[in-house]
Amino acid sequence: MKLNNGLQRVMAPCKKRPMALIVQKFGGTSVGTIERIRHVARWALDSQARGDDIVLVVSAMSGETNRLVELATQLNPIPYSREYDMLIASGEQVAVGLVSLAINTEAEKRGLLKDGSYRSRPLLGHQIGILTDSIFSKARIQEINTTLLRREIAAGVIPVIAGFQGVDPDNNITTLGRGGSDTSAVAIAAALGADDCEIYTDVDGVYTTDPRMCADARKIARISYEEMMELASLGAKVLQIRSVEIAAKYKLPLHVRSSFNSVEGTRVVPQEMLGQAGVMEQVVVAGVAADVGQVKFTLQNLPERPGVAAAIFGPLSASAIVVDVIVQDVPSNGLLTISFTVGKGDHLKARQVLETLKTTFAQMKIVEEADLAKVSIVGVGMQNHPGVASKMFTLLAEKSISIKLITTSEIKVSCLIDAAQAKAAVECLHRGFELHRVE
Amino acid sequence: MKLNNGLQRVMAPCKKRPMALIVQKFGGTSVGTIERIRHVARWALDSQARGDDIVLVVSAMSGETNRLVELATQLNPIPYSREYDMLIASGEQVAVGLVSLAINTEAEKRGLLKDGSYRSRPLLGHQIGILTDSIFSKARIQEINTTLLRREIAAGVIPVIAGFQGVDPDNNITTLGRGGSDTSAVAIAAALGADDCEIYTDVDGVYTTDPRMCADARKIARISYEEMMELASLGAKVLQIRSVEIAAKYKLPLHVRSSFNSVEGTRVVPQEMLGQAGVMEQVVVAGVAADVGQVKFTLQNLPERPGVAAAIFGPLSASAIVVDVIVQDVPSNGLLTISFTVGKGDHLKARQVLETLKTTFAQMKIVEEADLAKVSIVGVGMQNHPGVASKMFTLLAEKSISIKLITTSEIKVSCLIDAAQAKAAVECLHRGFELHRVE
Repeated sequence: MKLNNGLQRVMAPCKKRPMALIVQKFGGTSVGTIERIRHVARWALDSQARGDDIVLVVSAMSGETNRLVELATQLNPIPYSREYDMLIASGEQVAVGLVSLAINTEAEKRGLLKDGSYRSRPLLGHQIGILTDSIFSKARIQEINTTLLRREIAAGVIPVIAGFQGVDPDNNITTLGRGGSDTSAVAIAAALGADDCEIYTDVDGVYTTDPRMCADARKIARISYEEMMELASLGAKVLQIRSVEIAAKYKLPLHVRSSFNSVEGTRVVPQEMLGQAGVMEQVVVAGVAADVGQVKFTLQNLPERPGVAAAIFGPLSASAIVVDVIVQDVPSNGLLTISFTVGKGDHLKARQVLETLKTTFAQMKIVEEADLAKVSIVGVGMQNHPGVASKMFTLLAEKSISIKLITTSEIKVSCLIDAAQAKAAVECLHRGFELHRVE
Repeated sequence: MKLNNGLQRVMAPCKKRPMALIVQKFGGTSVGTIERIRHVARWALDSQARGDDIVLVVSAMSGETNRLVELATQLNPIPYSREYDMLIASGEQVAVGLVSLAINTEAEKRGLLKDGSYRSRPLLGHQIGILTDSIFSKARIQEINTTLLRREIAAGVIPVIAGFQGVDPDNNITTLGRGGSDTSAVAIAAALGADDCEIYTDVDGVYTTDPRMCADARKIARISYEEMMELASLGAKVLQIRSVEIAAKYKLPLHVRSSFNSVEGTRVVPQEMLGQAGVMEQVVVAGVAADVGQVKFTLQNLPERPGVAAAIFGPLSASAIVVDVIVQDVPSNGLLTISFTVGKGDHLKARQVLETLKTTFAQMKIVEEADLAKVSIVGVGMQNHPGVASKMFTLLAEKSISIKLITTSEIKVSCLIDAAQAKAAVECLHRGFELHRVE
């Protein structure tokens, strides 16, 4: 039933039905100033005036989360996660208070408020019942109670919901990780059976690469969930990968667009919707991604015996550390070397976990290399075109960029390089694979 | 039973029993910087190390609430109260996150943390179950659920509780009004049956007047709940009046002291504890208070008929506006003039309410005067000394300070004057009534 509804919606995405339910998510820059917040308020009320039911999900004002993290790390470079989550969740609380205040203020100006009535209501994760697991800072949503939301929507109210946060079974405040407000928005849209989920950000869509790293970047009009997940997993920050996973699961159409203009953005849709004229399959490489926050650990002098990898990555996983690239060398003299990367946010925590492993692997030597970037090319088209990887290596070599690790899959190739060279790498790959010509 | 326990505690306040339960409340300046927060953490752990159970209640970092109010008033000079409360409650959330982080960090340094254990837990109003009524910004605590607190205390954990906030029956975030963290602390102490409630602030006790207004101000060693309530109601900002009311009701000893040194502060105790040697009854005037945030409304041309006052103050009260001094002139020509004051925070809201009354009183003229101060003298001793009021008027006249309104009660005299003259008034009254000689 849910699936069928989803498909129907997707098959006719441009045909506007009366009283669609639209979830609009506004990121940090979109609510970064009082003037931007006023704009969001007008936008939401205009959207509602066109006859749709509107639900807002907002992030913390840009800069606010960093300010809070800075305070925490002054006290402890590795803040305890329960305190950390409670602290940074306050940023979204400020934002929903202000956005809801702006909407009600604008609604009053427009004569929409009756005695004591309201047109907007600020709601935190715990107030709605956004239940998550207890993995602080990377919590996953388990359940969303829609009772209160449906009641408010039915009364013509625009719920303004704090993204990024939830509450665990022990009533602790949890947060969903970087970009978690996207996931909040998509999960709420899915729970409500929304017709559309609009993600408002400071760029006007998904680009062939990060426009801040490469002037040639071009906007993609339509992209499949699968492609979008690849790009997101590779460091494209426009959408959190879990939000795309959830959207794909429920066939919820996403529309990534700018809150600074009315330009059509990028629509993220099922692969079959791209059809034979789909942009992504016409080109060999669809996008170039760079993730500059990478740290490489190399573990040397490990014994060559079964279970070594499990003994290492088990504890890392138990500490909720996401390990990215893993490379294992051919053993020599019965000794093994394993390299892997983690995000810089997990750098110190990973080191702590690895130190504890020295009791198991007495000879183990830990070598760290920070300030690295993972640069990747992605595209379903590369499956049918041999030589894409070697062309990538050649392009990088021409710019004297040395490669520290390589990993490949069917539709992507990733190289680990110095973070300082990330911009040059993205630019040469983008032009080398002719992405500047994508329409 | 409760009463008897209270009295026993008070009768032997200096005798330290093993495992006392102490609530420590830290105000905004006491957690105003990361260094101050570290100090609070050490202080709390030191207190616990002496064998007592410790519960912390903290305010927002100084300056934070003002920053948030400034953001809100940019959007709307009279913010809607639900949004306003959610917004400003975030300040305490930041503070409890940081203070708990500091305590756990210090506890780890001291070797007090076992694997995955914690010594401190940050808790918001809704997480504990601090249930209030729904009068936003001036909510009253109705019930405190102590289950979670008792469980954590029994496990050796220091709960770090957000002051100033609660949650109403509809799950909205509410706040308790200016100084509300004092009330949170005292109410939590009462609910837990605590042995002592220590109020840490930026002055080292209760003074004969505000030391920032008068260099002659002297610290009072002991003061009765009743005297303290008078001073608090008159603008002495060291304790919120409701906190003293609750303390009096439960005979909970308060100790107002500085978080910047270890000096003994002021103990607030039942009147009978002051005894015949009690400081307060030896002097005619015990304290001078000034409240500089006053606005006077004068309503002219009101009809002289029963029910006029009710028709005016009913709607103000319904809007949760606290009216302070009320003066009604002798009617002339069948017309009535009523003057009253409100805090400047209620200025615009009061004006709105009064404007709606013009439909009832067509002839009514509203005159406003802002930037006023109420200067008061208080002391139970003045009941037995005639001429105290006239001495006050003489002292003010000598400084050319004109009096705009006068109100008196058995143990206090208040005069409304220009806010610009408040400091001069306090100084001349303090010296005129020889408070600089109080030991």
